[in-house]
Amino acid sequence: MAIRFISLWLSLFFISLFSSTLSIPRIGPAFPSSIIRAEQQPSFATSNQPYRIKFFTQILDHFNYHPQSYQTFQQRYLINDTFWDGPKNNAPIFVYTGNEGEIEWFAQNTGFMFEIAPHFKALLVFIEHRFYGESIPFGGDKNAAYKNSSTLGFLSSTQALADYATLIIDLKKNLSAQDSPVVVFGGSYGGMLAAWFRLKYPHVAIGALASSSPVLFFENITSPYGFNDIITNDFRSESENCYKVIKGSWQQIEDTANQPGGLEVLRESFKICKNYISANYLEGWLQTALVYTAMTDYPTPSNFLNPLPAYPVKQMCKAIDDPALGNDTFAKLHAAANIYYNYSGAAKCFDLADDSDPHGLGGWQWQACTEMVMPTDGNSQDSLFPASSWNYSERVAICQRFYNVQPRPTWITTEFGGHDIERVLKRFGSNVIFFNGLRDPWSAGGVLKSISKSIVAIVAKEGAHHVDLRFSTSEDPEWLKDVRSREVKIISRWLSQYYHTLETAFNIN
Amino acid sequence: MAIRFISLWLSLFFISLFSSTLSIPRIGPAFPSSIIRAEQQPSFATSNQPYRIKFFTQILDHFNYHPQSYQTFQQRYLINDTFWDGPKNNAPIFVYTGNEGEIEWFAQNTGFMFEIAPHFKALLVFIEHRFYGESIPFGGDKNAAYKNSSTLGFLSSTQALADYATLIIDLKKNLSAQDSPVVVFGGSYGGMLAAWFRLKYPHVAIGALASSSPVLFFENITSPYGFNDIITNDFRSESENCYKVIKGSWQQIEDTANQPGGLEVLRESFKICKNYISANYLEGWLQTALVYTAMTDYPTPSNFLNPLPAYPVKQMCKAIDDPALGNDTFAKLHAAANIYYNYSGAAKCFDLADDSDPHGLGGWQWQACTEMVMPTDGNSQDSLFPASSWNYSERVAICQRFYNVQPRPTWITTEFGGHDIERVLKRFGSNVIFFNGLRDPWSAGGVLKSISKSIVAIVAKEGAHHVDLRFSTSEDPEWLKDVRSREVKIISRWLSQYYHTLETAFNIN
Repeated sequence: MAIRFISLWLSLFFISLFSSTLSIPRIGPAFPSSIIRAEQQPSFATSNQPYRIKFFTQILDHFNYHPQSYQTFQQRYLINDTFWDGPKNNAPIFVYTGNEGEIEWFAQNTGFMFEIAPHFKALLVFIEHRFYGESIPFGGDKNAAYKNSSTLGFLSSTQALADYATLIIDLKKNLSAQDSPVVVFGGSYGGMLAAWFRLKYPHVAIGALASSSPVLFFENITSPYGFNDIITNDFRSESENCYKVIKGSWQQIEDTANQPGGLEVLRESFKICKNYISANYLEGWLQTALVYTAMTDYPTPSNFLNPLPAYPVKQMCKAIDDPALGNDTFAKLHAAANIYYNYSGAAKCFDLADDSDPHGLGGWQWQACTEMVMPTDGNSQDSLFPASSWNYSERVAICQRFYNVQPRPTWITTEFGGHDIERVLKRFGSNVIFFNGLRDPWSAGGVLKSISKSIVAIVAKEGAHHVDLRFSTSEDPEWLKDVRSREVKIISRWLSQYYHTLETAFNIN
Repeated sequence: MAIRFISLWLSLFFISLFSSTLSIPRIGPAFPSSIIRAEQQPSFATSNQPYRIKFFTQILDHFNYHPQSYQTFQQRYLINDTFWDGPKNNAPIFVYTGNEGEIEWFAQNTGFMFEIAPHFKALLVFIEHRFYGESIPFGGDKNAAYKNSSTLGFLSSTQALADYATLIIDLKKNLSAQDSPVVVFGGSYGGMLAAWFRLKYPHVAIGALASSSPVLFFENITSPYGFNDIITNDFRSESENCYKVIKGSWQQIEDTANQPGGLEVLRESFKICKNYISANYLEGWLQTALVYTAMTDYPTPSNFLNPLPAYPVKQMCKAIDDPALGNDTFAKLHAAANIYYNYSGAAKCFDLADDSDPHGLGGWQWQACTEMVMPTDGNSQDSLFPASSWNYSERVAICQRFYNVQPRPTWITTEFGGHDIERVLKRFGSNVIFFNGLRDPWSAGGVLKSISKSIVAIVAKEGAHHVDLRFSTSEDPEWLKDVRSREVKIISRWLSQYYHTLETAFNIN
């Protein structure tokens, strides 16, 4: 069985290893190598300069004071002041709290902020997360920074949040915009950071839009079967046959692989290139396609990791259900995988050993080995994937072996909470939107019920992974338009309240 | 001029040096060496075992994951379950968030918690702050832990708060008391920690009583003259002559010291022992007495640092105004100092070079050199002390010289806020009591106005430094009884709301 390090958004790894032997042929993200082209995004196409790139001298360690803590690094951020009404009018600042990858990529996939900026006359800032993109400590040298736990040790969520607070405060000071309200935005892990940022730094951000942020996917708050149950339902909701074919394929792949010449049969069936193949790698490769397709089951064509058609789960099931392929399970699975890996039709063969990482997401593995211990990869008997239970000790063994590091599985709930979140936040905190799309497997660990008047859940039954943050298109369905319009209304209310309080304070003085 | 590192509560240092030359004869707390005797406290006298002493294996560095982060140390805490109604009834847990010193000492001076515990049927826990008392990292060896910035670097407020969260969560789990509500208490720096703990860890504590916590004494939020202005007013409110005599004494001391044989005149006048004397040391020694007496201007006799009579400021001014001493300024000042340093009358001479530190408060110097940069020691023209401005660069130079460390004067407001606190918390957070006594110089940096319905300020015009937390006595004035009774009522309300929410949640499930 393949063990998956399911992490956030794009950082889904398949660690192809036999769990019983713990032999580790490789550990690493298995990403398709297509790169987002900015010109494919409408607003990026209309503007030659959607942002300027800047750097901020950031401290390595906010929480300690030993000599190494004082080392600095250059943290990258993107800034767009095209629409900003400036400091004199205390016009708002919208900040994206960067995820586990290069920040341009998240900016390009967060068109929502560009689209609402003119209405709010807002400054846009996208801050890159430490250890990703070009925001690399230890002299900007990724090899040095990723060398071992002595250097990677400074890659943590609390440090990232403190980076954001420090940078935002400094930026506002430099812009003489101390009274400009800041709203933070983020999707996926970036959404977790946005929500936590509002809760931990209310003096820096007046509100947070946390899209598809599985803040409850820690410890035992959410079922370890929840993630794959949703993927299962996604495919099953398209057709029972589609679900059954996929579910039946795993045993068939393993049986075939175990026969003499079987791996070559599989290579042929799935058009795998002439290098490494194994049943585990092949299963991992297929599962990657299924998981990401479920996550990005958007109502319009998209190109986040790979170019995909609208409603790609439906398209995959259509391929699987195609009567022309008869009972050939492998042909059906290949046709489905082809939608994910080769929608453009250009690929001649698929490289199972491809571990290219065009958006620099590899640091997530470290995060998953330290604090981001999210039990997502259990599979119930009915799962689309082979049944398996969440195995924490396996995670420990892998992390020990790979980084010589011990996970701290209770840290996130210690630092940020999560247990009984409704009770805790019922009378504490304000101004957070938790958006979730229920077709997104991550929604299993999301906040799906409003907690108070101003800590609200927006749930879209048909939605996928932070679909609300994407550029709008003319084909967007009504429910998606509604979601965005609700978000804009709520953010407007936060700002009105802020300005009202500001005026009142001025009148008193 | 003597430079003072005024820090919290008991950690007032006089760094006796000439600021112009930056020669540092010593840096260290100048504490009187009397030790609190537990049998003097009423409730401690009636119980042979007011608490059990326990230890928790705590991680050295919560926020990073390099190998050193995983080192552990034994953190001490005191626990009293005499009054606790146990986990079955979800009876509350009252936790004192320890300050910059040995925890027993704070427990002994926080009788309020012992006195209200029976009413609330509460478990009492007093957690010692890392690097103080017996909670020493690096093998429990204070010399090793305090060796230099490489080890002291792990002494910080954020680490301390994370320690408290980790310990409390573990303790509740071990007691099967996960649903018992936790209320945190603290005075002075411990009060800052209590308030910040509620704001940062609302999932761990349902409320905080933050007594005399100068959370606004950072950056430029509070005037650097505020602290000494209050001391000035304290003495001036007793008698204008008292104020004038003290104010006039500094020049006279310096003039005398500059004359041949003058230091021996001063030694004789103030009964200083036959070792080191200088005008600066003498001034520092007198100022210590005046500052602490203002801080502890309690309405009843006390024995926090030293045994003191009720209303000690009044007693000092009475001594100064005593006509029997004529115009002899030094005799007047000696009589005043004698109240603070020698109320028992046992001392034969005073040792200016005494840097004993019976409660282990020395770590505060490090904290003042890193994050606790509180501009308290400016003196306006009218100050009781010689006029001076707050000099940040001097602090930097001292810290550089002494620890080779650079202060981070903006960190506390970055991490915990403080600017525009009313605006920020008006619609964020809940269940904090900020108590301040206006005779306490630290109240200059306190929250003196209620921010919302549940973030409330209790202000006692006649109150001194966390007087509310002290054991009650039969002589307590009405205003003090009122303060405590208001605090009890508010805490009761928090608990009622918690239990109500808990029941509602149970009913739903």
